[in-house]
Amino acid sequence: MAADYQAPTADYAFLFGEAFGVDIVARATGGELTAEDGADIVAGAGEFAASVLAPLQTVGDREGARLVDGQVRLPEGFAQAYAAFVEAGWVSAEAPASAGGDGLPGAVRAGLGEIWNASNAAFALCWLLTAGQIHALDAAASDELRETYLTKLVSGQWTGTMNLTEPAAGTDLGAIRTTATPRGDGTYAIRGQKIFITWGDHDVAENIVHLVLARTPGAPEGAKGLSLFVAPKYLVDADGSLGARNAVTTVAVEHKLGIHGSPTCVLSYEDATGYLVGEVGGGLAGMFVMMNSARIAMGFQATGIADRALQQARAYAADRIQGRVLGRDGVAPIAEHPDVRRLLLSMRSQVFAMRALGVYVADLFDRAEQTEDADVLAMAEFFVPILKGWSTEDAVALTSDAIQVHGGMGFIEETGVAQHYRDARIMPIYEGTTAIQSNDLIGRKVIRNQGATAAALFADIERTVDALRAAGGDVAARTADRLERAVDAARRATAAMVAFGSSPRDAHAVSVPYLMLLGVLAGGWMHALAVVAVAAHEGADEADAARLTAADFYGAHHLPRVHALAETVASGETA
Amino acid sequence: MAADYQAPTADYAFLFGEAFGVDIVARATGGELTAEDGADIVAGAGEFAASVLAPLQTVGDREGARLVDGQVRLPEGFAQAYAAFVEAGWVSAEAPASAGGDGLPGAVRAGLGEIWNASNAAFALCWLLTAGQIHALDAAASDELRETYLTKLVSGQWTGTMNLTEPAAGTDLGAIRTTATPRGDGTYAIRGQKIFITWGDHDVAENIVHLVLARTPGAPEGAKGLSLFVAPKYLVDADGSLGARNAVTTVAVEHKLGIHGSPTCVLSYEDATGYLVGEVGGGLAGMFVMMNSARIAMGFQATGIADRALQQARAYAADRIQGRVLGRDGVAPIAEHPDVRRLLLSMRSQVFAMRALGVYVADLFDRAEQTEDADVLAMAEFFVPILKGWSTEDAVALTSDAIQVHGGMGFIEETGVAQHYRDARIMPIYEGTTAIQSNDLIGRKVIRNQGATAAALFADIERTVDALRAAGGDVAARTADRLERAVDAARRATAAMVAFGSSPRDAHAVSVPYLMLLGVLAGGWMHALAVVAVAAHEGADEADAARLTAADFYGAHHLPRVHALAETVASGETA
Repeated sequence: MAADYQAPTADYAFLFGEAFGVDIVARATGGELTAEDGADIVAGAGEFAASVLAPLQTVGDREGARLVDGQVRLPEGFAQAYAAFVEAGWVSAEAPASAGGDGLPGAVRAGLGEIWNASNAAFALCWLLTAGQIHALDAAASDELRETYLTKLVSGQWTGTMNLTEPAAGTDLGAIRTTATPRGDGTYAIRGQKIFITWGDHDVAENIVHLVLARTPGAPEGAKGLSLFVAPKYLVDADGSLGARNAVTTVAVEHKLGIHGSPTCVLSYEDATGYLVGEVGGGLAGMFVMMNSARIAMGFQATGIADRALQQARAYAADRIQGRVLGRDGVAPIAEHPDVRRLLLSMRSQVFAMRALGVYVADLFDRAEQTEDADVLAMAEFFVPILKGWSTEDAVALTSDAIQVHGGMGFIEETGVAQHYRDARIMPIYEGTTAIQSNDLIGRKVIRNQGATAAALFADIERTVDALRAAGGDVAARTADRLERAVDAARRATAAMVAFGSSPRDAHAVSVPYLMLLGVLAGGWMHALAVVAVAAHEGADEADAARLTAADFYGAHHLPRVHALAETVASGETA
Repeated sequence: MAADYQAPTADYAFLFGEAFGVDIVARATGGELTAEDGADIVAGAGEFAASVLAPLQTVGDREGARLVDGQVRLPEGFAQAYAAFVEAGWVSAEAPASAGGDGLPGAVRAGLGEIWNASNAAFALCWLLTAGQIHALDAAASDELRETYLTKLVSGQWTGTMNLTEPAAGTDLGAIRTTATPRGDGTYAIRGQKIFITWGDHDVAENIVHLVLARTPGAPEGAKGLSLFVAPKYLVDADGSLGARNAVTTVAVEHKLGIHGSPTCVLSYEDATGYLVGEVGGGLAGMFVMMNSARIAMGFQATGIADRALQQARAYAADRIQGRVLGRDGVAPIAEHPDVRRLLLSMRSQVFAMRALGVYVADLFDRAEQTEDADVLAMAEFFVPILKGWSTEDAVALTSDAIQVHGGMGFIEETGVAQHYRDARIMPIYEGTTAIQSNDLIGRKVIRNQGATAAALFADIERTVDALRAAGGDVAARTADRLERAVDAARRATAAMVAFGSSPRDAHAVSVPYLMLLGVLAGGWMHALAVVAVAAHEGADEADAARLTAADFYGAHHLPRVHALAETVASGETA
């Protein structure tokens, strides 16, 4: 059985109020809310998640989503949980004020995103896709579409999906073949097959809003010819009530390695009625809002699944007695064995790094909006592929460590930890593979500006190195030295990457190692900021000591990967 | 569906005849067999595996082993495959001549071990355990036990199991509570529960020989009080025919993450009849022969599962078309995308490193036996935990890469690649977790002799650095530089480890990183030997070019991990 879930409220309180040297919730809301309010919201979400969502995680895995007579059925309890989720206002908590939502700061929404995913990743995908669609429609939909669809999404009455992939068009969206033919009445007839549609059908809400990329007649080849459409499962009458079934059919539900409770559908559009969102030919730009939202949310999912796996490993290790523990008197649980302690600290230090970076990036987007500073926006966008790529890759490895802590019991499905290992594996693939993230990073965000944003980041990190040296203490001193060397390596790697601008195969052959390098470095930076924040305290408690230990561990066990990765990046493509 | 399996016969021909600068098959057999003969045997195994074992891999996963009325039933086809396996002589191919087997060199048996595991890891575990028991009984059993049991194991008529673990005794064997009470007639009554017993019951052979660790009355506490017993599923009459069912019951079959076709049993001994193997109190030493054999074989299993995952990824990448390939004209499969190529080369270079190290270690044991040189034996034993720990850890990560190559299809169970990811995950746990391997390495094999064996290894590697420099060529020069720096880092890490001798928690907190460092280094050395061997050729063909590319890639992408790990090792336990 999976261990009980406990939301990491203390970490969020620290991140909102201290880690970044300022109350970021107050800054984002102009003082309307404080870090304490943010932590309270996170705590409330944690209680809801622990009592309603977490208990369904195992049943979601065992029963899975099933296609019965053309309708997807979710496991027992999912519909009730979704109703409670809506009722408690957690869908509108994600929505911006402009869409009629609560307009919470990004940092707080990061916490909520982690919690939904930690307690039940399969369930959380419904929220994740709906949230992404809310942002996309808020950015581009006409008043009519806003009124008909966006309001119902924000209230949680209906849910949203993202329809990009086709059998011959995965990473290469330009190959999309689904067509949208104008009917002359303002609507379009959509025809084609979409695959890997997360929550593409279900029975937990009364309607489903599909956001679909399709090609209009005579549109140019490739991505430029794509437009964006809303196509509901049930057509909506003029008075807003549900009408006939639209011509979109669920052909199959995939049998997957993990996230069994999340229905991954093959949808067939057979002249289904669709409504244009934005301009003809503006599909990719419109969908990008949703994709960007989903990619950031993947950072929260990575943190969530990773933390849940850590919690389960920690609970097992605190309970299990096996062998004499080196250097400890009497009977001690395996958590005290040096190598089990290593695994737990490794996971704990990674989870904090991911969590902190998620909050930092979410807050950067708020700052960019507030300040309308192009450099801040560039920095926020720089981090999106790093957050998505690095967090998800390392979270997969972390779930493997969580199994290892359990020994043989970890391999037994009833133990529950193997589910995280299975669930996690999709994360570096969907919403753009790590390779796609790395292409975005090096192409648009490093080589194009000759490493300017990266240089600004390194300067930011060096300011933290100075602050560490001013803070004093052994851990701060070691962290400063390690971080300084890591920044040097990152600078060299960035120079190599910029130099590869003229030999793109070299750049793309080491773009994933480069992305991972920046992710590991950013994680080390987050720990360094925590060390500075702890030093700014008067006095020190157990939680502070744990933060210093985690930072020191990360510096010794994870940050050195930067040097290995820098050597790899410099090598380019192997002939 | 899983891709067809092709045995890596070219690699084995190269390893037997060239890679180590001498025909190691001829050396091991005093010229009776040559590298060519060895490669022929491997090729024969490959044909058998591809046609008989590989087709059952998917069905083994889907149907799994089931407990029906107290008897384990294996999936359709397993019994026929086992009969064919025995008939073709593949069980006796593993057995030493002293036990009536073929007495093949270890290097050739390494190839067979990989092939059984690559084609069907769940099936191969039956072979792996039987082989281990053959070695254990050959070392310690009385003439009577040899005649009654060993002969039937070598012929393949009966299969063997290893019974160590109990609910409260996993890693800590000293906690074993199963008892063996002498009955006065030379037999013992065995009572207790054993868990995680691989192939503990099945229906593919007529009898099963359990090798059981148990405690005799009045035996001292801890591991010293353990003795070793043979307890068959069916008792054997004086004429060798099968008699009554012994009092050992299969209580449960575990529901596991992977290797579903391999029955993992809970066995209950209810005064079952057992026969002492060796001396009372000598159980651990006796079982160690089997454990050592199994740990080496885990290296072959890691190579096998890794190669199968690579073959599947390679087949998919060669076939799938998606997007324009950078720097290539016309339509090219995704294998040509720089990042997919990176993943494939990463896997390929790791598989070669594991495979070569497995052959090297197996051959070292043969050399130790031939020369009776204690230093050669010490070196062989030094490598056992490295081969087991490093190969299995990296093979797990590699199966994750194989999924990544498939994109979204990798997450769909029908694609087949996810099975390798699930199957692989048990490898760093069973036959001693990576932590246990690392304890063995640093405790018995590094700190105890103050790093003498490690120093001898580093000197061996430096001779290869010299040979690389003499060989000439860009790849050889780069490999020499990289390997020289890696050896320096390994020496520093070893010095740190030896210095930790007086603070064991520091040593054990970084023993796994130290083990991984030596594994990655050994892998780099294997590639370096390949580069030297290729340079010794006249002319060069495509296969040679591929070997150089793999070596160069390993040096740029994997070997640098040594430096990160060395920094970690130096840090000891984080306070």
